[in-house]
Amino acid sequence: MELIHDEVLELIQNRQWAELKNILIEMNEQDIAELFMELDERDITLAYRLLPKDMASEVFVNMDPEYQEMLIRAFSDTELSEVLDELYVDDAVDMIEEMPATLVRRILTHTDPEMRKSINEILRYPEDSAGSIMTTEFVDLKSDMTVKDAFTRIRRQGVDKETIYTCYVTDNTRKLLGVVTAKDLLLSDQSEIISEIMETNVISVSTIEDQELVAEMFQKYDLLALPVVDTEKRLVGIVTVDDAIDVIQDEATEDMEKMAAITPTDKPYLKVSVFETWKTRFPWLLLLMVSATFTGKIIQSFESALAAQIVLTSYIPMLMDTGGNCGGQASVTIIRSLSLGDIEMKDIFRVIWKEFRVAFFCGLTLAACNFLKLMFFDKIGIAVALVVCLTMILTIIIAKFVGSTLPILAKRIGFDPAVMASPFITTIVDAISLLVYFNVAGAMLHI
Amino acid sequence: MELIHDEVLELIQNRQWAELKNILIEMNEQDIAELFMELDERDITLAYRLLPKDMASEVFVNMDPEYQEMLIRAFSDTELSEVLDELYVDDAVDMIEEMPATLVRRILTHTDPEMRKSINEILRYPEDSAGSIMTTEFVDLKSDMTVKDAFTRIRRQGVDKETIYTCYVTDNTRKLLGVVTAKDLLLSDQSEIISEIMETNVISVSTIEDQELVAEMFQKYDLLALPVVDTEKRLVGIVTVDDAIDVIQDEATEDMEKMAAITPTDKPYLKVSVFETWKTRFPWLLLLMVSATFTGKIIQSFESALAAQIVLTSYIPMLMDTGGNCGGQASVTIIRSLSLGDIEMKDIFRVIWKEFRVAFFCGLTLAACNFLKLMFFDKIGIAVALVVCLTMILTIIIAKFVGSTLPILAKRIGFDPAVMASPFITTIVDAISLLVYFNVAGAMLHI
Repeated sequence: MELIHDEVLELIQNRQWAELKNILIEMNEQDIAELFMELDERDITLAYRLLPKDMASEVFVNMDPEYQEMLIRAFSDTELSEVLDELYVDDAVDMIEEMPATLVRRILTHTDPEMRKSINEILRYPEDSAGSIMTTEFVDLKSDMTVKDAFTRIRRQGVDKETIYTCYVTDNTRKLLGVVTAKDLLLSDQSEIISEIMETNVISVSTIEDQELVAEMFQKYDLLALPVVDTEKRLVGIVTVDDAIDVIQDEATEDMEKMAAITPTDKPYLKVSVFETWKTRFPWLLLLMVSATFTGKIIQSFESALAAQIVLTSYIPMLMDTGGNCGGQASVTIIRSLSLGDIEMKDIFRVIWKEFRVAFFCGLTLAACNFLKLMFFDKIGIAVALVVCLTMILTIIIAKFVGSTLPILAKRIGFDPAVMASPFITTIVDAISLLVYFNVAGAMLHI
Repeated sequence: MELIHDEVLELIQNRQWAELKNILIEMNEQDIAELFMELDERDITLAYRLLPKDMASEVFVNMDPEYQEMLIRAFSDTELSEVLDELYVDDAVDMIEEMPATLVRRILTHTDPEMRKSINEILRYPEDSAGSIMTTEFVDLKSDMTVKDAFTRIRRQGVDKETIYTCYVTDNTRKLLGVVTAKDLLLSDQSEIISEIMETNVISVSTIEDQELVAEMFQKYDLLALPVVDTEKRLVGIVTVDDAIDVIQDEATEDMEKMAAITPTDKPYLKVSVFETWKTRFPWLLLLMVSATFTGKIIQSFESALAAQIVLTSYIPMLMDTGGNCGGQASVTIIRSLSLGDIEMKDIFRVIWKEFRVAFFCGLTLAACNFLKLMFFDKIGIAVALVVCLTMILTIIIAKFVGSTLPILAKRIGFDPAVMASPFITTIVDAISLLVYFNVAGAMLHI
């Protein structure tokens, strides 16, 4: 790959277009797209025009929006129509969503009327809904067709469809009656009737359903495509597995960003401007900073106790960090388990009981290690050492409790559990651990 | 679904097996499996025996290992053979990996010799390698076949293959020459020769490659199946898209666990024992606790300065938390971008420059908010307020720098970047922020 890469760049530099074309037509479209995105504007347009028509649109789809925009601006009207003709509806929608309004008008003018209708339909669905990620190009069959008829229809329609491996059987009102896979068709006798071999217990999703549910269904049922129906159960489109994989990755990224107290964006890191990045991070930092002032208040109110035993101060960071880490471990585990469907609201008491035992053992073992360190390395008094270790055990138990229950409760009241991750848990646990620390110290050291 | 669920449970309670059977055969196998896993042992076995043979093995595959074990123990030898005959090789391997040794022997004795050979072959590949997740059941064609021959072969072999939608063209030494999709075959003329329509620029993966790369290739190239070849480029198996989706989810979970300082397990939360959970969490907590003692040492060495200005102590948690949160935001963003391939080692300077600007604006805006709070709510002296705000800006810049560079450097030296997330960054940033704090305070307050 590296070798081809350098060779292509050299051919472009030397303007050896014929040789370049020979190499490109042997390459994979995704790899060509990645290579083109490293060229400057003029070279992209020149190199792009070397591609045969069927490859060109594939390469186009795999490029980032800013390069697509660049190409569209360079296209003649005929070239634009040619590329648009080859696109699948869902890819066209993805592209249009990223283009400036003037370009969208030009694009829509050059798509054929039927496709324009489909594009407009999909654009109407709310962001991240099943409707917004579906394609309207699928093979539909009638229940009274024979397998032979079905193959004729697939051969006639198939070339423009994103998948022909799952075919959808509808009635005259477009209501979804069943599905039949290409495998079923291939393994059946040519004279069999579709209604005899179709699966009528169809898994489908409504247009307004969240894309997260769509992704879950692909994973649960091992699907290649999922039919999308409107409120009257009419088939309006399908989601294919390649788009479901993108959703799975996007949702995982979104969860990770929320866990790190960032407002999710769906753009790659290097494509987001500094100001936009600031906007995704600053509000959370501010909120957490304000919350952290409670911790400061707690320290202030124990200032005299601290002044009497200043050594206590030096263990504050260690206790706070350990509490935060323990809470973070519990919350991330629970958030992910919730989103994978491994645990549900009804499991909350099992979760609490399990986390209590884990916390107890973590607390005991960490406190024991810490006690040895305090006695033999720090050489502090046994009373202070016991205060630190007892605080540690209690903090860990509370941190695991807070970290495991808050995500479940957040989900219960309709919030995204991912927000209840380390940063929030840390802020809450900080305050609690200090309260525990000073109260234990007050009771045991009489300060 | 809820309704069916209650109805099924009632029918089982009342021992109405005939009615139950009628309902089950209309249901989806995945849903039946989930329902069965809520029953007690005797009822599972009874209900399972109601299922028609082809559904039974599907339901079996979708159950958790402990229920599969329970069923296998209840099966007669004939029943066991029947279920095993229907399984795909990769599902059989997944199951065997979870079974105790005595049961594995019984299972292998009751599989037919060819499947046993395949199972043993797959079991030999290292965990999380492409070889370990592949299946050996695929449709292979010869390059001199016609499309008609290919269909005959698919019809004869297809029923036992996990996918028939991508067919693999091999020579007599099993070397992979090309792929042809069922769509290509359906849209081609019956008399065409396979070598004329096959795609020869085949994307494949080696048996020992990491499963993470397999998942990336599915996402990048929108594949339905990926061929797996040995060191001599001979085709030994394929990975199908449903297994790739599982890998994508597992890898995301693994990254999240590492980010939260947990050793990853591949089992669902509620299936892991308390001791095992402790084992995944304790070592990291201990390591982080020991690292956090440096922070304590820093505070100790500035004890006299703190005693002179005890108000400084109360801002320690806020500064540490803000630093930790800023570092965590940067590190999670970078870790995820690295694993999605959005950034690479060569982007490190672009990343640093971007994070520097984001940090500068975050620092400035947060410090400004904080300054107002310090002056009007806390009513502290302007000198101390300036110390806190200046420390905040410097800490944020350092935190973002550490948080964004460490994951990239970790990857560079062959470590998993996900380990360089919030907990580690927090521990490092804590120490740095305190050093900055006390030095700024020393310089500005002359203590």
